[in-house]
Parts: sequence; C-alpha cells; structure tokens
Amino acid sequence: LHARSALAAESIFSVMSRLAVQHGAVNLGQGFPAGAPPDFLLDALRAGAGVTDQYTAPAGLPALREALAADLGVRSEQVSVTCGATEALHALADALYGPGDEVLMFEPVFDVYRPQAQLSGARPVPVPMTLTRDGWSPDLDALERLVTPRTRALLVNNPHNPTGHVFTPQELARLVDVARTHDLWIVADEVYDELYFAGPPTPLRTLAPERTFTVGSAGKRLEATGWRVGWVVSPVGVSPGVSGLHQWATFCAPAPLQAAVAAALPVARARDFYGELRAAYGARMRLLASGLRALGLEVQVPGGTYFLTALAPGVDARRLVEEGGVAVIPGDAFYAQGAAPEGLVRLAFCKPQEEILRALE
Amino acid sequence: LHARSALAAESIFSVMSRLAVQHGAVNLGQGFPAGAPPDFLLDALRAGAGVTDQYTAPAGLPALREALAADLGVRSEQVSVTCGATEALHALADALYGPGDEVLMFEPVFDVYRPQAQLSGARPVPVPMTLTRDGWSPDLDALERLVTPRTRALLVNNPHNPTGHVFTPQELARLVDVARTHDLWIVADEVYDELYFAGPPTPLRTLAPERTFTVGSAGKRLEATGWRVGWVVSPVGVSPGVSGLHQWATFCAPAPLQAAVAAALPVARARDFYGELRAAYGARMRLLASGLRALGLEVQVPGGTYFLTALAPGVDARRLVEEGGVAVIPGDAFYAQGAAPEGLVRLAFCKPQEEILRALE
Ligand SMILES: CSCCC(=O)C(=O)O
Ligand SMILES: CSCCC(=O)C(=O)O
Repeated sequence: LHARSALAAESIFSVMSRLAVQHGAVNLGQGFPAGAPPDFLLDALRAGAGVTDQYTAPAGLPALREALAADLGVRSEQVSVTCGATEALHALADALYGPGDEVLMFEPVFDVYRPQAQLSGARPVPVPMTLTRDGWSPDLDALERLVTPRTRALLVNNPHNPTGHVFTPQELARLVDVARTHDLWIVADEVYDELYFAGPPTPLRTLAPERTFTVGSAGKRLEATGWRVGWVVSPVGVSPGVSGLHQWATFCAPAPLQAAVAAALPVARARDFYGELRAAYGARMRLLASGLRALGLEVQVPGGTYFLTALAPGVDARRLVEEGGVAVIPGDAFYAQGAAPEGLVRLAFCKPQEEILRALE
Repeated sequence: LHARSALAAESIFSVMSRLAVQHGAVNLGQGFPAGAPPDFLLDALRAGAGVTDQYTAPAGLPALREALAADLGVRSEQVSVTCGATEALHALADALYGPGDEVLMFEPVFDVYRPQAQLSGARPVPVPMTLTRDGWSPDLDALERLVTPRTRALLVNNPHNPTGHVFTPQELARLVDVARTHDLWIVADEVYDELYFAGPPTPLRTLAPERTFTVGSAGKRLEATGWRVGWVVSPVGVSPGVSGLHQWATFCAPAPLQAAVAAALPVARARDFYGELRAAYGARMRLLASGLRALGLEVQVPGGTYFLTALAPGVDARRLVEEGGVAVIPGDAFYAQGAAPEGLVRLAFCKPQEEILRALE
C-alpha cells in the first residue's frame, strides 16, 4: 500500500469499543449515546422510507439545507451537507490545507484532526491547553507564538473534546484577533453546540463570518451518531468549493437520513429537545464527577460535550477494561508523544445512570 | 482555498440533473432509478429503525460484512463497508496511489476516477476503448504500451460505465497478465455486477485474488443510489489499511442503512430480484435502442450497466435539455480534452417506460 497507509491505524475509539465488547465492560470510552434516537427522528425516517432514496445534489437535500439555515441563522447556500462531521472535517482539510502548510489545533487534540491534516499534506501544530486546579484553559500566548508564515488555519473545537472546555467570549475574541492579524481560516468544530452545562458556547461564525467554517453533526445533536449526516457552514461564496471536493469523497450524504433530519430539526427546536438533553446529561455528569471524587480522583467539570476528564495516576486504560470492566479513553491518545498530564483519562457520560453507577463500583 | 479546489467543479451528472429539474426535462442523464427501492429493503429499514443508530466499527456492521461475504464468496475480514462506492474508490485512491504514481483507466472514463486520482497526487493515464461498427472494445495493446515504471494500478470498470461494455474472459485474462507482469494493483469497480444482458461479468477477484480490490454498491444493486452503502473487498490481509484510511474520511457508513442492506441482501438473492431487474431493464434498454435507431442514430447495445451510448452528431446536450426537454450526458465529459467520438452521448434507461417514450418523442 502507499506510505500514507501508515496513518491507517485503528483509532483509539474503535480500539476501546472493541475491547469493551470483548470483555463485557461498561463503555465510557467512545462518545455515543447508549440508547436509541428520539422518536420524532425515527418517526420521520419511517414516514419518509420510499420517498427520498436516490442521489441528492452533493451540497445536500434542499429541505435539509433550508432547515439548517433556519436553525443556525445562515443562508442555505452556505450549507454543505456531508457524511457526518468526520467527512465535513475531511472536506475542509482537502479544501484548505496542503503540503507545506501548518494547522494550529488545541492539544489534547480530538484524534481525527491529526491524520486528516497529514493526509492533506499539512503539518498539525499543537497549541497547549493548560490544566490547573481551576480546570482547562487554552494557552493563547502560545497560540500567538506558534503562528508562522506557513500557518493556514486554526482548528477550534468548541465545546472542546476531550477537555469539555467552553471557550469564553474573551478567549474567542483573542482567537479571532490572531486569525485576522495573520489572515488564517478558522475551522470551528461545533458538533457539541447544544450540549453545554453553563452558558452556551458562542458560534465563531458570528464573530468572524468572513473566515469561519462551522462543522456540525446531526448525529451528536439527535443521538444518532451512526447516521452520518453532518454539515459545513462556509463563509458566503466559498461553499461550492467545499461541496465540490466532498463530491469526490462520497458524492452525497445518505438521502433518507438527510430527509429525516430535515424534518426533525424544527421539531427538536420546538419541543426544547436540546434543553432536555442538557438536563439529562448534566445530571449524569454530576453523578459521574461526584462518584469519581468520592474515589479520590481529581475531576475537571466540563462546560460542554458529553465527556469529562479526570486524573487517575497509575491507572492503565487497557488493564482497566480487562480487569476492572470499564472502558475509558487514555489521555495520551490525545497528545503527541509523551506530553499528557500524568494519569489523564476521558470518560463519556452519555450512558445510562445504571452503567455509570456500575462503572463507579 | 487550496489549489486542489480547482478539482471542485460540479460533476457533469449534477449539472445535467440540475438542468433537467430546471427545464422540466426527462432525465436520461445521471444514473439513478426513477422509482423507490424494493419493498423488502424499505421494510428492513422500517423494522430496524431504533435498533442500529450509533457508530459501527469503521470496517462495517458485522452482519453486513458477513452478508456480503456470503453473497460474494469471500471472507468477512476482506470486506470494508464505505459511504457508497464513491467513498470506496476514494479510500482506495488514498491507500494505493500518491504523487509520482500513474493509474491506468479506460477512456471514456467514469468522471469520478480522474479527480480522485489527482487528489491523491497521482496521474490518471487514459487507455482507449475503441468504437467500431461492432461496438466498444478495450485497446489492450495500448494498455501494455502505456505501462511505465511509475504505474501503480489498473482501474477497471466492469461492466463499463459509460460504454456498457462487459469485458470478455479473454480480455480479463490479458489484463491480469499485464498486472502480474508489472506487479500492478487491480481496482475492479463492479458496481453493475448484477446488471448484465448477455453473459454475467467475471469478477476480477476470482482471476487475480492476490492483487484485486473489488468495489461494489448496495445503491446500484438495490435501486437506492442515495443510501451510500458501498464496499471494498480487499485481497486477504490488506483490508485493515483500507478501513483505516476510510475511518479518517467518514468514520463509518450509515448504520441504519447498513443494517437494512444486511437484511436485504439474502432476500434479493433468494427471490431472484437481480434477475427481475435485468429483465425489466433489458426491456427498457431495447425500447430505447430501437427508438433511437428509428430516429437514425447509431446505437451501441450495452452488455451491462443501465446506460447505452449512441452517436448523435450535431446534437448539443445543453441545448437538448433546454429546447428538447431531454437530459443526456455528453460524451466529451468522459474524455480528456477533445478525444471523444463525434456526437457521442450516454443515455440512462433505468427510468420508467413512459419517460423513455416521452424522451424519444
Ligand atoms: C468518530 S468516533 C469518535 C466519537 C467521539 O466523538 C469521541 O469519542 O470523541
Ligand atoms: C455518483 S453520480 C453518477 C451516477 C452514475 O453512476 C452515473 O451517472 O454514471
């Protein structure tokens, strides 16, 4: 195979999910809800079966582009529908970076970002998130120092996976300032935009509409991570390039699932589904956090996402899944060689209360 | 955007489908069935809604890998499930080619192959298909002449889109011979494997199992082109590299649609759905071919696919869709600059009889 197949190693998420199944462990590793998606989404799928089954335009089913435009407050022409947020990020890597380019990304880094940048030929440049007793925060002085003439883009994950950090308006203003000064694109991975526990995150596109690409995910919002319906909102005028590159990767996103998501998005908004999700996940987050603290671990309370991090020095994630019956993601998976805080682990709390309690036991 | 976004131009299929809608034309352009998928597929989807909605492993839902293994006579470990055949071909371009490499492909070329090779950094090298009064045939002497030390792979589309040519066993034996002599990978795009009108095509993996990657498509087989469930069958031992690269493009294929296809594949086989499809499409093919001949056009009868080609000198496809109310694909879309036979057009007959008759009128 070509040398780039060195990047084909199984992701840490798949590894831990596979080990969890193998050892009958509680899976607090990979980020997916344990249950089924909401009925209003499944009903839309059943009702639409046999209606929207052939190719859509690569940019997406018009009804979905319009539903997203209404939900996000953008124009439908700005929306490119993709096979999940993973493909949205892949299309942006194709569209924005190439050999010789550098891409800034906050470390700990969601593990898809590095290989995607490398596949495009670009070099991922980690910008540290600092961990103190007060929790996680981005090192924005380091961000400024790490910009070079080769820097093309700043990849910001907000709320941030794996730390759960929600960037403050001040932090975002400084990011935008750096991006404007050095003329960088901003790739804003906002798949957890509706999953926050204190204030809502500010969409970066509202602060820097001229240079921000927003990535979103129906799977994360509607508890259907296997549906592969994601999107990019591009700055006005740029989306044909994004949709045009996506057409060579997958042609279009799954048509019947696009149609169901188009029908479900306004329903989710109307019945405050996301508010209910926040309440339910917030309760499980507190249950997990207090349980871990009772075990003597240091826990960082997340502002968003369905993950929290904790320090469990001496715990080996592979032994934990085998011998302890609990799958978590080891922190070093999110770091370039050797830089992870001692004992860092990520735990997902998008799982039923019983499973969280069983994991704590 | 990055310079590679020069490859983002809207594909000819999307252009013609858009123009067809805009002008209320009969769409004999893009290859998708006009109707809904078969009930046994839709029933499987409805029955499974709410069961398989979260991430699957990147290699695919185990039930689907097993159903495909049984259907195709391969091992389930060889199967990588992808977001449609387009993504299967994309993952293979990532896995097999890079800058400096050359990829042989028969011209007229299905329009996805060239940009995918170019995105990987490789150079697409066209091998002519010759058109005579007897129809299309591959120029296998040219194939041998065009191999260089930089040639990495031979991309074979069988049955061949757009010509409808089904490679004879003799032609395939010669292809395999060239591939073995020069140690080339074979990428066998066999998405129309069940759509043939004379003898069935021979799967290339049965002739050269050690070097053949087979690409297939549930959308083409089950009349659901928007479902985005495709696959690669790799030589034994190689599939982790293919699945591992696919994970960075889309992570996994749509889970509920994978589950429905897994349930539908044995049903399709048991009730000879593909045989019915061949009978139905064969009748429409003959209707279209004889109608075009009655208009005085020279028609090439296809051995497979749901397309035929014809020579309609002087006909301009863009004017035809606007003024004649019929969308077709202009032959030059499948050729590097200027090499298309005068007046070549491709017409899809996977459309209802009434539409074909209206188009002929
Ligand atoms: C695409 S698999 C990763 C799922 C996820 O978002 C996570 O676990 O971080
Ligand atoms: C992926 S769009 C092209 C559909 C098709 O197979 C064709 O029209 O040739």
